[in-house]
Amino acid sequence: MTKPELKNTRFIKALLREDVDVTPVWMMRQAGRYLPEYRELRAKAGDFMSVCQNPQLACEVTLQPLERFDLDAAILFSDILTIPDAMGLGLYFEAGEGPRFKKVISTKEDVAALKVPDPQADLGYVMDAVSVIRRELNGRVPLIGFSGSPWTLATYMVEGGSSKDFRKIKRMMYESPEVLHELLNVLAQSVIAYLNEQIRSGAQAVQIFDTWGGALSTPCYREFSLQYMKQIIEGLIKEHDGQKIPSILFTKNGGLWLEEIADSGCQCVGLDWTVEIDQAKERVGNRVALQGNMDPSVLYSSPKRIAEEVGRILKGFGEGSGHVFNLGHGIPLDVKPENAKAFIDSVHEQSQVFHS
Amino acid sequence: MTKPELKNTRFIKALLREDVDVTPVWMMRQAGRYLPEYRELRAKAGDFMSVCQNPQLACEVTLQPLERFDLDAAILFSDILTIPDAMGLGLYFEAGEGPRFKKVISTKEDVAALKVPDPQADLGYVMDAVSVIRRELNGRVPLIGFSGSPWTLATYMVEGGSSKDFRKIKRMMYESPEVLHELLNVLAQSVIAYLNEQIRSGAQAVQIFDTWGGALSTPCYREFSLQYMKQIIEGLIKEHDGQKIPSILFTKNGGLWLEEIADSGCQCVGLDWTVEIDQAKERVGNRVALQGNMDPSVLYSSPKRIAEEVGRILKGFGEGSGHVFNLGHGIPLDVKPENAKAFIDSVHEQSQVFHS
Repeated sequence: MTKPELKNTRFIKALLREDVDVTPVWMMRQAGRYLPEYRELRAKAGDFMSVCQNPQLACEVTLQPLERFDLDAAILFSDILTIPDAMGLGLYFEAGEGPRFKKVISTKEDVAALKVPDPQADLGYVMDAVSVIRRELNGRVPLIGFSGSPWTLATYMVEGGSSKDFRKIKRMMYESPEVLHELLNVLAQSVIAYLNEQIRSGAQAVQIFDTWGGALSTPCYREFSLQYMKQIIEGLIKEHDGQKIPSILFTKNGGLWLEEIADSGCQCVGLDWTVEIDQAKERVGNRVALQGNMDPSVLYSSPKRIAEEVGRILKGFGEGSGHVFNLGHGIPLDVKPENAKAFIDSVHEQSQVFHS
Repeated sequence: MTKPELKNTRFIKALLREDVDVTPVWMMRQAGRYLPEYRELRAKAGDFMSVCQNPQLACEVTLQPLERFDLDAAILFSDILTIPDAMGLGLYFEAGEGPRFKKVISTKEDVAALKVPDPQADLGYVMDAVSVIRRELNGRVPLIGFSGSPWTLATYMVEGGSSKDFRKIKRMMYESPEVLHELLNVLAQSVIAYLNEQIRSGAQAVQIFDTWGGALSTPCYREFSLQYMKQIIEGLIKEHDGQKIPSILFTKNGGLWLEEIADSGCQCVGLDWTVEIDQAKERVGNRVALQGNMDPSVLYSSPKRIAEEVGRILKGFGEGSGHVFNLGHGIPLDVKPENAKAFIDSVHEQSQVFHS
């Protein structure tokens, strides 16, 4: 069966630094709690993972922001922690506490017992969601698949959940680096298999979320985070169904390491809001596309103030392709949807002059 | 009355980039919960603020780490939030929750009602502690005074305590920047008066802790944090009792802005562990001294591993003066004191070869 042709190609083209009419835009966590229709669905469907694990519901939630906003990409509704969950760690969510694992990884033996999950047998619900969403999108916009980075996944697995200072995993890193490397290795293999199966199921681009790489010193970032993301990028399917599959690498608080991230082989570097995009472009813009990078908190202000900030960032990137507009982190849960709309429309309106 | 001559001048000399025999070292939060004698004193004395507000106890706690370790500086035992407390916000500490304020700053009117505290009338307990500690030190090592930065103080005052994403203050920043500027202005005036009175009371160097500046975009960092720290540095007493009083400016996660921080007029830029010190030195080392920057989590590992990391950082800075060794953030509460000792001794032992 031939897939319907992609109607809105801006996002993929910008990732490949090909000409576009306006700068494409999407928002990290664009399907989520700031939308009343999402909260309504959740109230009926139950907990977060129940939605992720039901392909029809995951599809419905993925499409919700596209009904409201003129977004240039959809992103699979899922969690970054599906892989450790499929490894048997027992992911659950405690109200106000974020994700937790029933089983925590502490020893060499714990790590040795971990196996690369089979993407179809163990994570079939994700692949089904990708297929259903892709079918329902019907070529409207491309679908982004994603995964957490090995380092980021490992922080949750070793700490047992979110952490402020990563005491346990850093103790492991400095005391028993060989154990951590073994853990990161099985995670990198798992992410490759997982993302490639998302691509085979219909994902048209992939993003790796390295949420916690910025907690590392420079040499540790290289050794324990970036190295494994490079492995993943090398192992990814580069083309599927005759289409290039671009990859985006986003290390939050990675502003010091943009050059090295750009050399990872990815097509696009995700920026948080602490970096100025003109400087980022100067540093790496001749090698990769850039994604980002408005402070999500600007969405708390007025449409006028949002438009100002959008204009400032567009001007910072300047003329030409290679920019995917986004927030520098996920959209906060208490933003007004009309401000998200003002943001997205403003990107399209104001960016016309930067594309000839 | 003449003050006793300073016996250990390494710390002050390194800040002024004058020759030293070995690299001086101290640790942020060196007086604190990782020391059993501190926990013992706290168990008797009661809550944290009771210790801060009792000059004899504050002195005892300040000197505790100096009894154990060969530290090159003492730092006043106090809290960064004494100024907002003196403004009437009612600082208190909730177990496991960090600092909280009874009164929160939300409106223009709230800000207009704030007054610059009188350092002697309203914060006399801090000045008394400084005097007592200075007397008890008897010239052994210099005493560091400190304050939070205006931006960092404002985050606690507007959020009501610690924050993950600074929703309230960022909303204020983007929606009503003039209100935030008024708040930051009264804080900058307060910090100047507060630090100058610490200097008159005996502080021989001062550090400004900008713990949360790294949560800002580059232009917002300039406008809402750095600008006010510059004002403070301009307003500080530069010499007292015939001695230069150097200032250290530490913005956590400020690695992208080292050049601008170095141009603030401070004598030393504090580094967290995400920046490589050789690169920091290349960027700003001809203008200022550098302080830092070992990842505190290295202290969880072995003395051997600690020595390796100390050696790596010393080698990164290279030959000559202008380096004060420190951690990249406060020492964690569950570090073994013997590992802190290994760290400090290792800095002195290994740094000899870098000083002729």
